[in-house]
Amino acid sequence: MEGGAAASTPAALPYYVAFSQLLGLTLVAMTGAWLGLYRGGIAWESDLQFNAHPLCMVIGLVFLQGDALLVYRVFRNEAKRTTKVLHGLLHVFALVIALVGLVAVFDYHRKKGYTDLYSLHSWCGILVFVLYFVQWLVGFGFFLFPGAPFSLRSRYRPQHIFFGATIFLLSVGTALLGLKEALLFNLGDKYSTFEPEGVLANVLGLLLACFSGVVLYILTRADWKRPSQAEEQALSMDFKTLTEGDSPGSQ
Amino acid sequence: MEGGAAASTPAALPYYVAFSQLLGLTLVAMTGAWLGLYRGGIAWESDLQFNAHPLCMVIGLVFLQGDALLVYRVFRNEAKRTTKVLHGLLHVFALVIALVGLVAVFDYHRKKGYTDLYSLHSWCGILVFVLYFVQWLVGFGFFLFPGAPFSLRSRYRPQHIFFGATIFLLSVGTALLGLKEALLFNLGDKYSTFEPEGVLANVLGLLLACFSGVVLYILTRADWKRPSQAEEQALSMDFKTLTEGDSPGSQ
Repeated sequence: MEGGAAASTPAALPYYVAFSQLLGLTLVAMTGAWLGLYRGGIAWESDLQFNAHPLCMVIGLVFLQGDALLVYRVFRNEAKRTTKVLHGLLHVFALVIALVGLVAVFDYHRKKGYTDLYSLHSWCGILVFVLYFVQWLVGFGFFLFPGAPFSLRSRYRPQHIFFGATIFLLSVGTALLGLKEALLFNLGDKYSTFEPEGVLANVLGLLLACFSGVVLYILTRADWKRPSQAEEQALSMDFKTLTEGDSPGSQ
Repeated sequence: MEGGAAASTPAALPYYVAFSQLLGLTLVAMTGAWLGLYRGGIAWESDLQFNAHPLCMVIGLVFLQGDALLVYRVFRNEAKRTTKVLHGLLHVFALVIALVGLVAVFDYHRKKGYTDLYSLHSWCGILVFVLYFVQWLVGFGFFLFPGAPFSLRSRYRPQHIFFGATIFLLSVGTALLGLKEALLFNLGDKYSTFEPEGVLANVLGLLLACFSGVVLYILTRADWKRPSQAEEQALSMDFKTLTEGDSPGSQ
């Protein structure tokens, strides 16, 4: 807020973004390693269909959703519309991948005759999915679909940001619950003997929490926010140049 | 930020605060009901010692910690120092109650010969406890202990707020993991038959998530932030009055 909206990128931001990406990719690789080394790998037409669920959810609702939130910080000097479209598209990819993960677990439950939707993990998961879909639809209606008045957009924007961050955090919390559930189902009493699978999954859990922490930090740091309405500011700067003879790039 | 610092309380804020307190008290009551109805109640000198752990953690690291974060929004027109002391005191109460909860579970494990610190819940719990203690010490050093220069306080404040919110969210996540662990240990296969205990605990889990969401909403809403440095603003307003003949209460 202070000092006007500098168009340059803050010095430390790229390092934090790089760290978040390193964490995110490690998360995905570690989930793959866990499923490959200890859970027999992934396939659609067998008992291994279940394993598509955690992998899809970590890729879609953790890594891609987190990256979609960071788009406005990373592409801070691009045109607003381009950034908006990228933000919306990343969320669509995340939603589609999460949908595949959702189908995998329901299909697996159906084939095995297991009960659906009895656990806290599943309740949180359905809540996340519904909220995510509604948030996408409302966000599209307000920000991408032409016609929403500027005043309405401005009033809805803080709500969109708050609910976006909340849904992301709830997604990570749900992933932690699912991981814990899988560990207790699969390892049982062996969990308390520090089996390598248990330790790996615990580290994966801590990394999930850490990734969400770094994304949240980048998102909430006041001086890293995208200069508000870059295009409009550029316009007003041009106007200032015309009226006061000042150069837009001079400050 | 915009429109200067109005000393009055925003119209909707009290309703949100009341809702958060209703949720927080419901959480505590529901945890008590769960332990009383389905887990045999609470005692220190028997197998029921374990039950002191979830109750202490929900009271200390969820309800009281959440309330400590809200102090600056609720007492927005009190003297800064009074609010600070209340904020620090609430965190001390939370820490002491959490310590009792921690002793309860370690003591119970020792008596039963159970392994300590093997689960993701326990790893996250220890992390929360250490971060919470460090955050309190550093916060005390910067903000309550006299002597920290103003410029250092201003630079540390955003970090203190970010880590405060993050530790609170990690506490709630850890509580969810613990709840899930207790359900799977105690109910086993019966969890999938929609036993009343399972449904009650699932609702408790959703309420935990909901409480943290409401606290976070109150905390992050830009126009509900405490007017920055109320005392100093009052001083500068008085100075303005003297120099410009304007009334401090006139705007």
